[in-house]
Amino acid sequence: MVKLIVDMMGSDNGSAATKEGVRRFKKNHPDCELVLVGKLDELADMEGYEKIEANDTVGMCAGAMEVLRKKDASMVKAVRAAADPEMHADGVISAGGTGAFLSAATLILKKVPGVKRPCLITAFPKLTDEGGYVTILDCGSSNENTAEELQQFAYMGTLYNQAVYGVENPVVKLVANGTEDGKGTPLTRDAFALLKEDKKVNFQGNVEGNQLLTGSVDVAVCDGFTGNVLLKTTEGVAKGMGNEIKKAFKRNIFSKIGYLLAKKGFVKFTTKMNPKKTGGALLLGVNGIAVKAHGNSDGECFESALTVAYKLALNKVVQKLKEGFAE
Amino acid sequence: MVKLIVDMMGSDNGSAATKEGVRRFKKNHPDCELVLVGKLDELADMEGYEKIEANDTVGMCAGAMEVLRKKDASMVKAVRAAADPEMHADGVISAGGTGAFLSAATLILKKVPGVKRPCLITAFPKLTDEGGYVTILDCGSSNENTAEELQQFAYMGTLYNQAVYGVENPVVKLVANGTEDGKGTPLTRDAFALLKEDKKVNFQGNVEGNQLLTGSVDVAVCDGFTGNVLLKTTEGVAKGMGNEIKKAFKRNIFSKIGYLLAKKGFVKFTTKMNPKKTGGALLLGVNGIAVKAHGNSDGECFESALTVAYKLALNKVVQKLKEGFAE
Repeated sequence: MVKLIVDMMGSDNGSAATKEGVRRFKKNHPDCELVLVGKLDELADMEGYEKIEANDTVGMCAGAMEVLRKKDASMVKAVRAAADPEMHADGVISAGGTGAFLSAATLILKKVPGVKRPCLITAFPKLTDEGGYVTILDCGSSNENTAEELQQFAYMGTLYNQAVYGVENPVVKLVANGTEDGKGTPLTRDAFALLKEDKKVNFQGNVEGNQLLTGSVDVAVCDGFTGNVLLKTTEGVAKGMGNEIKKAFKRNIFSKIGYLLAKKGFVKFTTKMNPKKTGGALLLGVNGIAVKAHGNSDGECFESALTVAYKLALNKVVQKLKEGFAE
Repeated sequence: MVKLIVDMMGSDNGSAATKEGVRRFKKNHPDCELVLVGKLDELADMEGYEKIEANDTVGMCAGAMEVLRKKDASMVKAVRAAADPEMHADGVISAGGTGAFLSAATLILKKVPGVKRPCLITAFPKLTDEGGYVTILDCGSSNENTAEELQQFAYMGTLYNQAVYGVENPVVKLVANGTEDGKGTPLTRDAFALLKEDKKVNFQGNVEGNQLLTGSVDVAVCDGFTGNVLLKTTEGVAKGMGNEIKKAFKRNIFSKIGYLLAKKGFVKFTTKMNPKKTGGALLLGVNGIAVKAHGNSDGECFESALTVAYKLALNKVVQKLKEGFAE
């Protein structure tokens, strides 16, 4: 059975959003045990759940020091509970600040033996008729990485993609400034050489930024700085274009009628692009599953984050990482 | 008077596209002198222009060696003409392969004294009501850069933005994984420190990928690897979303009528996003203006590239670079 610890207080939208997310998730996964962490009076209407009292929160921009100081913060208590051997928990979910969550998860859960550096994973919808998702890592857990770290990311991304999207043998590519084998920085060229010999992953060379969403790659590997730029650029362009689409439809009465007529296709498209479906980001490489839901999660979004954590636990991804890096 | 050398043979669409581009440009800028390089029979209908015969072309994927070998290629002859002191030319335009053009321009025109490394510049339309463009550099001329190089890019981008878009005091930001001063890699942090003290540019800190098109920055500075990923990711997402918009409108007869009703706003939007308007990429830091038009340029696109070169020449950008880096 899967057991997850849930920080109920981290979301910008308060415990209403996390409570709705928990209820939605529980309806689909009644077998999963959830432990709720937060203010007991706010959680009074959540009956039948184990609860841990926590009356403080960490700020959205908090760093490692604040995390260590705020012992009664719901996020810190949730991560500590996930690390407690007596809890037998598989992982922890929070919608609190990314920096604080990364610090808490790394400091408290600690790295899986053999893992050089944990990494932050996110997924983007592929813009193809077949759909699916491309897993991108590292998305900003580090600023700088070594070739050996990139090689490990490839395996972590493979396990994630298999567990969450059910792709049997995900295609791994290295993000570079050209598809030819010799392209890239000294870092990516070294990583290329390591990955070419790595039997654990289905490595198929370099990928450029314009091919990421077109379906030719399942796992895109890069250093944390590049991944962060890539992730935020994609979000920025998608959001900017989304605004332009809205403006184009709102121009006048004709364009508004036009929207009503074309609505179905656009709803399908915006559903595909909806970040709520991917459930936030995930820290892999620590001793336990650590999923960071979007800060502005609503119920649906928080449910997705819980589902990601559940699938990773069910597929024993942390166990597989331990085995993979113990070799 | 401005004098530009034009490679007429580099475009994927043959000399028909470059000839149309030249005619369109010449109509708007009759004072600009153009020298056309290519097969004389193909250029027979271009009367009143000085011409240089060149009967060969370089492949789209050619590198430095091929460029040096193919002495009769139109691109190579065009760059050589631009470098020839007796020609008194201001610059050169080609729609040939990027790698070959960068090599030819760097090897033949040579660096401006004081410039550590030339860089590739491109511009993206801002997705704001005010419009305008954000200048991004380096977009992939280098794989790795030093902090001093990034500092120089900031000045090059400033001159470009002033000359081409007429922004008096362009806001310069450094692409990083967070807006706070301490964010970024050791490279960007070092560049941050240099730029903070640099009186030649209006430096205003870091910018994240999701803020690039929202108008808060005129010149975005990054290393060539990051710039290339950023550029191609933006292109990829924009193209992918454009396809989804088309699909949504083509679903059925209702959505098609919807398109007709909402068309005006979408035409306005796609015109804004049209890469043809930005005229390709530009290599700055070499002794002369070197504009690389899109490989699949049509007449409009090639005209934009000619216009960019013309504006840079008119604003004496190369001269200003020489003065700026001679200090």
